[in-house]
Amino acid sequence: MTTTAPAQPDGADLDRARADIDRILDGFLTGKARAAARQRLPGEVTVLLADFLAAGGKRIRPLLCLTGWRAAGGRGLPLPVTRAAASLEMFHAFCLIHDDVMDRSDTRRGHPTVHRALAARHAPGRTPAAASRLGAGAAVLIGDLALAWSDELLHTAGLSHKQVTDVLPLLDAMRTEVMYGQYLDVTATGTPGVDVGRALAICRYKTAKYTIERPLHIGAALAGAEQSLLDSLSAFAIPLGEAFQLRDDLLGVFGDPARTGKPALDDLREGKATVLIALALRHATRTQADQLRHLLGHRGLTHDQAATARSIITATGAVQRVETMITERHGQALHHLHTIPLEPASARHLRDLADRAVRRHT
Amino acid sequence: MTTTAPAQPDGADLDRARADIDRILDGFLTGKARAAARQRLPGEVTVLLADFLAAGGKRIRPLLCLTGWRAAGGRGLPLPVTRAAASLEMFHAFCLIHDDVMDRSDTRRGHPTVHRALAARHAPGRTPAAASRLGAGAAVLIGDLALAWSDELLHTAGLSHKQVTDVLPLLDAMRTEVMYGQYLDVTATGTPGVDVGRALAICRYKTAKYTIERPLHIGAALAGAEQSLLDSLSAFAIPLGEAFQLRDDLLGVFGDPARTGKPALDDLREGKATVLIALALRHATRTQADQLRHLLGHRGLTHDQAATARSIITATGAVQRVETMITERHGQALHHLHTIPLEPASARHLRDLADRAVRRHT
Repeated sequence: MTTTAPAQPDGADLDRARADIDRILDGFLTGKARAAARQRLPGEVTVLLADFLAAGGKRIRPLLCLTGWRAAGGRGLPLPVTRAAASLEMFHAFCLIHDDVMDRSDTRRGHPTVHRALAARHAPGRTPAAASRLGAGAAVLIGDLALAWSDELLHTAGLSHKQVTDVLPLLDAMRTEVMYGQYLDVTATGTPGVDVGRALAICRYKTAKYTIERPLHIGAALAGAEQSLLDSLSAFAIPLGEAFQLRDDLLGVFGDPARTGKPALDDLREGKATVLIALALRHATRTQADQLRHLLGHRGLTHDQAATARSIITATGAVQRVETMITERHGQALHHLHTIPLEPASARHLRDLADRAVRRHT
Repeated sequence: MTTTAPAQPDGADLDRARADIDRILDGFLTGKARAAARQRLPGEVTVLLADFLAAGGKRIRPLLCLTGWRAAGGRGLPLPVTRAAASLEMFHAFCLIHDDVMDRSDTRRGHPTVHRALAARHAPGRTPAAASRLGAGAAVLIGDLALAWSDELLHTAGLSHKQVTDVLPLLDAMRTEVMYGQYLDVTATGTPGVDVGRALAICRYKTAKYTIERPLHIGAALAGAEQSLLDSLSAFAIPLGEAFQLRDDLLGVFGDPARTGKPALDDLREGKATVLIALALRHATRTQADQLRHLLGHRGLTHDQAATARSIITATGAVQRVETMITERHGQALHHLHTIPLEPASARHLRDLADRAVRRHT
């Protein structure tokens, strides 16, 4: 483990970690804002990115990174490790800003998405179409900066040479996996089919590996973990991450928009190729399948049509099948959790996470 | 300088370097293609990226990186240094793929752009609008992968710890600068004005620093250059890079499409806020300015209207002013070139580059 920064008390809790992470992100962007001002570069870039990060987010990836650190015997919350963890949140900002452009989402965390905010800001003197294109282009660039800056946060974290060497292959893997996962998602959207395997691969690459497995791995590697511990973490993380995404897919169609914060029509309108939809199409009667295919991916889908789609999906048994898959994966995750050497607080954190994956409404 | 790889003979020339760079890029992507196949991830990602890299490009940034290496006393073409240089070309692929999406360009280097190729590939079963959106989203992701992979190419290059430490701040600066430069460009496009300073800032960040200064710096830093050498390289690079972009702006409006390989209407149709246009608007009569503002940024601009725009721009004296700026900057660059300690081959390479910036037609 690192000796480059003073360790904090072992009992330091998640709230403390979350505050540290936010302080690191805030301080980093303040520095970038000052540098931009000195060079007379536009200040809106760091303002929008800071607002995006401040608007919410559970910091799930950085906190899992710190849990991985503890699981591998790391002590306290040394600044370099917390900074490495915070870099995952900056990376996630990149992912979400680009995702929102690709999905043409209007809101995120109750605020306009970055591309919509930019389109509004630059509307004067432009046609709505030109402003919208500008918003998309400029948001892609702010996402690109978040990606470059996540890297900078990491390699200026003050990690030891060994920590850097151990962690970079995992970080490379994480980036490649989530980008391929999103690629699978984007290219499957609009042509949903009965291919449950393809839909599960999207779950695995876009969520399970990216959100749960790799953050745990990265934290564990920072503490010098052996491969056997990484394998145990994977055995817990992959089923949990799949359960998490399967729940997300259900909420995307059946969730209460007032609680999830996102419109309940988007996934249906986009024609997202989720496991839920693949199972529905696979087990539908021919009439149901025809009707469902007609409704999915239809941009002008009304609330009534969405209700029809939902009742068909339920009638095929797909909702029950997905609930069963979630329960199975939850059980697998908890089973493997016992094989990981964890202090009580970290074990509780992971168990809570697993339980929320099954039961959450948002 | 590095001792981690055998040095090649001092006289190794640019053609040799170019072949080495291409072999490195090709080998890296072959590895990524194999990894994707093992994980049953879509093969089109690496195919499209490899095709993009193979379709052309002068490898100007990697070659300048190697020239910087030589200028700082580096000997031969050690593999780690060539690999670091090649990573700049992968980064450039990221920039161009994203730029093409933002500019909605149809072709690049005589081939369909990545987003157009993807839209065509995924057209079956989709509306043209849906296929076009998919193409843009998937191309942004391939660009994201190129960015992540440029990083991986660099940090798996086998550089020494000192080389990595010396080069990362310059790489961070390069990324941030080019992204801000592109941001300035995207947000200024469509509302061209008389602000020559803003247009020159775009030149400086998007081209001069990114294309010339930082590649030279990075190569020099790999050989352990002092700050004074980096300063000399900047004094050469910035005026040269500005001259290069000013020539590009002229070719974007007055170039022969058969020679430049890109349509001569795009810059006018997009309403690019170049120095050329800022000078034209600043020195135009009121009637000329009104007419020009009406024509610029008009998506449906005809060839006749473009001819009118060109004759107004010429009549304002803007073309002559830009030519004068290019000549001045060429002179400054050559003046500073003499202060850099270069072997004859490298000096000739930089002088050729400076001359081409002034005289090129493509």
